[in-house]
This record gives sequence, structure tokens and C-alpha cells, in this order.
Amino acid sequence: MVHCANMQLYHVPIGPPPPITGFRGCTRLRFVCFICCHFTALLDVDFIRRSENAVSQTLGSKNTAAMSDKVILHYFNGRGKMESVRWLLTVAEVEFDEYYLTTREQYLKLLNDGSLLFQQVPLVEMDGMKLVQTKAILHYIAEKYNLFGKDIKERAMINMYSEGLIDLMEMMMMLPFTADPKPKLDNIQSKAKERYLPVFEKALTGPVYLVGGKLSLADVLLVECTLMLEEKFPAILKDYPNLKSFQGRMIQIPAISRFLQPGSKRKPQPDEGYVKTVMEVFNITAPLSL
Amino acid sequence: MVHCANMQLYHVPIGPPPPITGFRGCTRLRFVCFICCHFTALLDVDFIRRSENAVSQTLGSKNTAAMSDKVILHYFNGRGKMESVRWLLTVAEVEFDEYYLTTREQYLKLLNDGSLLFQQVPLVEMDGMKLVQTKAILHYIAEKYNLFGKDIKERAMINMYSEGLIDLMEMMMMLPFTADPKPKLDNIQSKAKERYLPVFEKALTGPVYLVGGKLSLADVLLVECTLMLEEKFPAILKDYPNLKSFQGRMIQIPAISRFLQPGSKRKPQPDEGYVKTVMEVFNITAPLSL
Repeated sequence: MVHCANMQLYHVPIGPPPPITGFRGCTRLRFVCFICCHFTALLDVDFIRRSENAVSQTLGSKNTAAMSDKVILHYFNGRGKMESVRWLLTVAEVEFDEYYLTTREQYLKLLNDGSLLFQQVPLVEMDGMKLVQTKAILHYIAEKYNLFGKDIKERAMINMYSEGLIDLMEMMMMLPFTADPKPKLDNIQSKAKERYLPVFEKALTGPVYLVGGKLSLADVLLVECTLMLEEKFPAILKDYPNLKSFQGRMIQIPAISRFLQPGSKRKPQPDEGYVKTVMEVFNITAPLSL
Repeated sequence: MVHCANMQLYHVPIGPPPPITGFRGCTRLRFVCFICCHFTALLDVDFIRRSENAVSQTLGSKNTAAMSDKVILHYFNGRGKMESVRWLLTVAEVEFDEYYLTTREQYLKLLNDGSLLFQQVPLVEMDGMKLVQTKAILHYIAEKYNLFGKDIKERAMINMYSEGLIDLMEMMMMLPFTADPKPKLDNIQSKAKERYLPVFEKALTGPVYLVGGKLSLADVLLVECTLMLEEKFPAILKDYPNLKSFQGRMIQIPAISRFLQPGSKRKPQPDEGYVKTVMEVFNITAPLSL
């Protein structure tokens, strides 16, 4: 069924293809091969799905939904704003596939398809929706998989903690894009020590989890955040024994333990290649001043 | 009950006072007067509440909760990140009082009291909680007052729209703090026209509200955002008839109509005084480079 010889497993197109006029309801669609820029002939959707699934890594999740129900992530092959989504899906034990943005053309295709509500990634295809905006995605997953508290007051606490953690992680996210990262790094360290870590250290005096005695979105973000911090500042948790214990407990959760093994869907720290790809895809020419 | 002669209605302290050792459960507390820096004697909480209520403006809301249950906002006397909270409470017809941050000492007192989870305002006292983080506050209010959809899919849509609108409004929020606002203003206008307004124009082709045929957080943010945009770019909605109609319908909602009248709790566009206060309270010395 493959039209183009270049259309192999490792360059299947990203994004939903345009439906073919006159084939409304048909499961066969046409694609563009990004290697040779040729349109394919009609392609069987199931074949494409299988190919895509073969491309993306798998983690051995317990989710047994049909291929067509699978969660699909569209983002760079790097952490960025998608990494927390990967963490949350992992903890919820939801299987997902990933399409990596590697060229501006792929991004433009997503735009032209109307897949990106506000022209931005992350994009997560899930339950028939094209979810964008990181926090909207996280909240949907958290609510669906009972990681968002038992009532609105617990949810408010989870939200407060989560927003703080995302603020801190977003500062770290911007580091590789800054021309002079040293002052930013110092600022992150002092903010972490003065503003954020003491809050969580105190909250975890006694309780196993941050809110309501039950695992939530906030816990997932906290373990992700502490690990990110330790990558930059290896001894940063030494004055926060509760946080270190919490981290120790969390990384023993089987799904997290697997996620932390080499070869999982967890992404490494951003390197020059990642930065270059992001800048090219978004057509950014100068270092960000943020 | 007032210890200090300066402790008049217009400089009652902001933020919850520290409880007095040995008076656990007592409703009488001590305060610092920020004018003369003296500690007060024991003050009756009800008296303080009444004073505070007298200070802040009132809008004639339908909410008839007891004084002690009243929602209290701690922020600058300006829009900033609190304005959307004011809008949402207004639409929910929830009465609220406001304590304005005017000096760094007031901010430090909130910090020392432990009222600010991450050392930041907005702070909203509500239902026995000290809510921080704008989005956590908005979500709590939206959920409590049935402005957050009927299920998780509707909530995801409301969240997506809301996140986009907040992104756009945050760009406008930063304008008065930038050294050279012109390029930022141009960027906001083009982003609004290319990225945001078309999405909402399309979503309102037919439906009265953005999601689920019912007023939600997203609608409230949208009307706030369109009015903000028109302040900067008066003709910006001329190519978006659905948005203009939506705005026309929304401003006829009685609570919104009152909110748009002079003397309401709606704040004016930021001026030099507002910027100066924010910079002083947060000890910011240079224009932000954002």
C-alpha cells in the first residue's frame, strides 16, 4: 500500500492527514512523504497506524486499548513542555505513541491541518480530541485517571502545587535557549531553595503524598521537578529530607521505575541538536532573551 | 478596640494576622499598624473584618454570605493577574473585598504570615483557604459556581480556550513594564489577529457560548480579553462579527453590565502609578526585558 519507496517506517508522516474529497467516512487517506515530497496514493489507515506504532517507542504499559484509541503525542524528540505529559501518562499507565517534529514542514502541516488550536505544540490526540495547551492536557489526563483529588478543595491544592512546580520547571526549560544561562541557572537555584523546595518539604512532613493521602498530578510533577533539579544541582535536596524520601518512594512505583530506565520514553536533558531543531521548526533566529 | 490612633479604616493591615500563643481558637488577634509600626493590642476579629469591609469597594452583589465567609482579594489596586479573578467572581455574583498592596512592608507581612505559598500574589482568601496561583484560583471559582463545563471533555475545551486567552492577556499585562512597548504592541496585535481571534470567531459561528451551550470560564475570559484588545486597537474586532456579537451579548449580562460602569471593582488600564507601586513592592529596579 506504500506509494513512495522512501515512505518507510522511520519517516511516516506526522499529523492527521487531510480527508479525501468524495471519500467521506472512508478509512483510507492520502499522505505526503516528507522525504521525497510526493503525495502517496490512498493509504489504508490501519496500515499507517501500525507503521506509526512501530516507529514510536513503547514502554510495556498495561493499557490494552485498540490501536485507534491510542494516545498520540506530537512534539519534539525532547523534554520541553511535553515531558510532564509523558510523566503523567506513564504514571496513569496509559500507552502512548509519539510523532517527533523534526522539520518546519511537519509543523506547517500540523498548522494547515488545523490540528493546532493556537498554532502551538504540545498536541495530544486522545479520546477523539486534539488537545493543546500543556495544562489543559495535564488536567484532562489527571481528571480522567483519578489523579486530581476527590473534591474541589483538594483540586485547588493540587492546582496550586502544580502551578508552582510548572513555573519552576519552565524556568529550567528555557535554559538551553538562553544566550547566557549562568545567571538564569543561579536564579533557578536560589528560587528553588527559597521559594519552592521549602513549601514541599513542609507539606511532606508526615503525609506520603502532597494532597489528600493519595497520588495526584502534583506528586508526579514534584518527582519530575526534583529529578530535573538534581541534574543541575546534584546536592540540592540535601537539606530537604522529606523531599528526598518522597522522591525515593515515588521512583519505586513500578511505572516510574520503568520510565527511569534507559530506553524508556523519558527524554534526556536538552542538547544542541534539540535546541537546533526547535529553533528551525519555529523559525527562531536569535537566542531568546527570557 | 483600636490601639493605635493611626489605625483608621484606610490603613487596616492586610493579610491574616499571626495567631497569639495561648489564645488558640480565640477570635481576637494582634495586628501591626503600618503607619506607625506599633503592634496593636488584642483586636476583635469581627471588628477588623468590618473595618476591612468598609475599606474595600462593594458592588451590590447578590451574595449574602456572612462577613467571615466573604471572599477577600489581596493584590495591587490594578488589573494584573487579579483582574480575571474579579471578572469571574463578578459573573458568578460572588461578593468580594479587596486589600490593596501599596507598600513593600505589606507584601513582606503577607510573606511573613505564610499567606503566600510561593511568595506571590494574587492571593484570594475563600472558603477557609488561602488560594494562590491565578489559574488555580480561577479553576476553583469556575468549578464551584458551575462555570467549568458538565464533564471532563467540556472542561478540556474550556481549559484550552482559557489558556490561550490568558497567554494573550499576559502579553498585554507586561506592556506597561517594558522599556520599549511598541514592538511588543505590534506583536500582540498580529498574534491576536493571526493566532487567537480567528479561533474564537470560528467557535462562535452559531453557538451563543464557547463550550456546551452554557456560560463558562472561557466566555468570561473572552469578553475580558476582547475589551482589553479594543482598548489598545479600537477597530480590532471589525473583521470578527461573531466575536463582536458575542461581546455585545456578554456585556448585557446584568452583573457584567454593572461591572463595566464607573465606580465598580473593575480596574482601569495600568498607569505610571500602578507600575511604580508594583516595582516598589516587588523591589524591581530595572524595566523587565520580557
